[in-house]
Amino acid sequence: MREHVLTVLQGIVAPGCILPGEALPVITPANADEISKIMQLANQEAIKVLTPSSKCGLSDPLPAEDTLMLSLEKMNTITEMDTANLVATVEPGVTVTQLNQALKQFGLFYPLDPGRGENATFGEIVAQNANGLRGLKYGATKHYIMGLDVVLADGRILKTGGKNVKDVAGYDMTKLMTGSDNTLGIISSITVKLMPAPEQQKLLIASFGSTADAGKAISAVFSAKVVPSAAEILNSDAVKALSAAGYTNLPAAAAVLMLELDGIPLAVEKAGSKVADILRSYNVQQVLLVETAQDASDYWASRQAISSVFTANAAASLDVTIPRSHLSEALEMIEATAGRHDTAIAVFGHAGDGNLFPAIMQNDKVDLSKLAQVQEELIQALRDLGASVNGTAHQLEMQYGPLGMAAMQQVKKTFDPNCTLNPGKLVGVC
Amino acid sequence: MREHVLTVLQGIVAPGCILPGEALPVITPANADEISKIMQLANQEAIKVLTPSSKCGLSDPLPAEDTLMLSLEKMNTITEMDTANLVATVEPGVTVTQLNQALKQFGLFYPLDPGRGENATFGEIVAQNANGLRGLKYGATKHYIMGLDVVLADGRILKTGGKNVKDVAGYDMTKLMTGSDNTLGIISSITVKLMPAPEQQKLLIASFGSTADAGKAISAVFSAKVVPSAAEILNSDAVKALSAAGYTNLPAAAAVLMLELDGIPLAVEKAGSKVADILRSYNVQQVLLVETAQDASDYWASRQAISSVFTANAAASLDVTIPRSHLSEALEMIEATAGRHDTAIAVFGHAGDGNLFPAIMQNDKVDLSKLAQVQEELIQALRDLGASVNGTAHQLEMQYGPLGMAAMQQVKKTFDPNCTLNPGKLVGVC
Repeated sequence: MREHVLTVLQGIVAPGCILPGEALPVITPANADEISKIMQLANQEAIKVLTPSSKCGLSDPLPAEDTLMLSLEKMNTITEMDTANLVATVEPGVTVTQLNQALKQFGLFYPLDPGRGENATFGEIVAQNANGLRGLKYGATKHYIMGLDVVLADGRILKTGGKNVKDVAGYDMTKLMTGSDNTLGIISSITVKLMPAPEQQKLLIASFGSTADAGKAISAVFSAKVVPSAAEILNSDAVKALSAAGYTNLPAAAAVLMLELDGIPLAVEKAGSKVADILRSYNVQQVLLVETAQDASDYWASRQAISSVFTANAAASLDVTIPRSHLSEALEMIEATAGRHDTAIAVFGHAGDGNLFPAIMQNDKVDLSKLAQVQEELIQALRDLGASVNGTAHQLEMQYGPLGMAAMQQVKKTFDPNCTLNPGKLVGVC
Repeated sequence: MREHVLTVLQGIVAPGCILPGEALPVITPANADEISKIMQLANQEAIKVLTPSSKCGLSDPLPAEDTLMLSLEKMNTITEMDTANLVATVEPGVTVTQLNQALKQFGLFYPLDPGRGENATFGEIVAQNANGLRGLKYGATKHYIMGLDVVLADGRILKTGGKNVKDVAGYDMTKLMTGSDNTLGIISSITVKLMPAPEQQKLLIASFGSTADAGKAISAVFSAKVVPSAAEILNSDAVKALSAAGYTNLPAAAAVLMLELDGIPLAVEKAGSKVADILRSYNVQQVLLVETAQDASDYWASRQAISSVFTANAAASLDVTIPRSHLSEALEMIEATAGRHDTAIAVFGHAGDGNLFPAIMQNDKVDLSKLAQVQEELIQALRDLGASVNGTAHQLEMQYGPLGMAAMQQVKKTFDPNCTLNPGKLVGVC
């Protein structure tokens, strides 16, 4: 079968990188039509199609023989920037950085920074509904996705939504596809809403002697009705892990808050001094007002490096959401758990929506046989505080119950009856 | 069958208003369990269940014998206000006004005003994904709906989403249900995101000698990167229709803009003078800065009265969305069409998202036999300007194509295989 498939594939698209062994090559289609033809082939030949988040040769496991890997990295054109209607259309391989650079001259921006560094593509962000750094003020990725082209499992191309803000009649297929991780179809074009870029952005770096103080301080900021455009928190183990990886600009402290304020200069100034007052009343050790855009960019680069530092150095990591009012308790509990097991648990997260990423770091002290136990304790304690643990099938079941799971699995079967697309992902059927 | 059903019904819930003739009574359940039992009964007895937007005895057509009408007006409890996490949970009969009054003491609000007056309930807003007046700055209803309880067609109760901002793993059933007009299930509980109430809200009323100037002025406001919290436009026929109905506070002019600015007082003041400068450069006749909250409330009451004035006096009305850049042309075209046919076409709309509501008014001059022609001309000319005409099956087909319609109909069949819920609505199957 392999040779036959390879021959047909060559008629559709030049193969991308060849993986070792008997696996089929990684395919890098140039447009929706090529994806469509690949999906038709996949259906005929009973081949599974995976859309790995990483590129050729990176961390994904080697695919099985009957599996095609599809990488959308070649589809990286900004199709349209309609500055009058504050809308842009991009292919899935376009990065947020790329779009924002193109928009700069118009005074516009796509406000959500997925927090994954410069290479995060719209395809990945939409497939995973990744929200990132600026969700507190600007909302979720989903709020900015106005329309999609989706190549369905059988190769037909579904258009959802559109440029008009109120294109919302009928069932919202755009929102159903956003976050579906390409299990219902492969997203081949994305229309996003844009915003006027703020006149000013100011970054404050605040360091604290205890995580509890940092947690309480950020809660007090929210209670004071200040809405920062970003509110990131890091504990000391996270700062240490960054420092060890060469990102040394963040202050060594029990906890660090990165607060970004944006808007017109007057409002930013007023909010800034209000925030500084609040931080002082929670024993802040140091408040650094970052002066230049370059310095701010360097601080954000450190923050964004955490994901890759965790990937390289963490023995296990979690993605949890905690009710904002329990943030301080969660940080203290994590610290206590780390102390009890004499290990490092680095935490970073979006304080604004209570989305924390704790990671049990690999070091000399970690007893790998105890890892599962530490993780289980963490998860249980977080759940006791009302957290949801994202991205696990167990969490999905807990959250939605058997009826919710059955409803989602039924939707999967409706769109992908032959289980061709990313089988097993997300809702755990076929 | 009728007697048997009535007997069973009485064991579930006391019947509401009895309609004339052989129709089944209007049922007003008190909670999700009662809805669930009604849905089970409906499935056993092959009864259709409708959820009319109006209450007992109002404008809906008399239901057929095998049809139950369900009114959710009794389910009007605010279940929870979690002010620390900026979340509230309400039953579907709770009105936006009711929630906002309860939130006032906490300095919080639900920002979207559906523009339907004080009686709009969350159940209606969510079922229809009604966005209303403040969408320009605050986004769509959908962005605020964090979780739902939905009684499915077979009586099982599905819980979607939740209080945690990132409860977004799995397919987004919350968004699928929002705007589904109770065709996939009956929404019995709604969890919404809240926002800090702005320190200040200021309303500006601007009158113009031509609709084109008004359209250009509002475009210029947006281009200047001012984001009003509301930007409503009315043409002279709309102002006249309001005046005839006793709402006389709006100025008689070719076009009136109602612009609301909110935020901290400094920012509102700065934006206000910027806006006034822009309006002046587009030949504004008068800019009225509304001084008191009571006056502002009276102006909004006039604006909100339009829907009922149209219901009472319009021969035909449309709900269209036009790319914002074509707003001015659309208003001029409507004026020209009205002139050509010597009739009145009142228009109001949300200038911010290009959502316009033109209505051909009934008056002595209207030749009812020509109504269809005027309407057809309007629709065609609007479509030529890139408009979508909302709420028609034809528009859905045009917008989504046969594949999009088939996908939506498949979703309907998945959730409501026996076609029990609001048959024929929205996607036009069963």
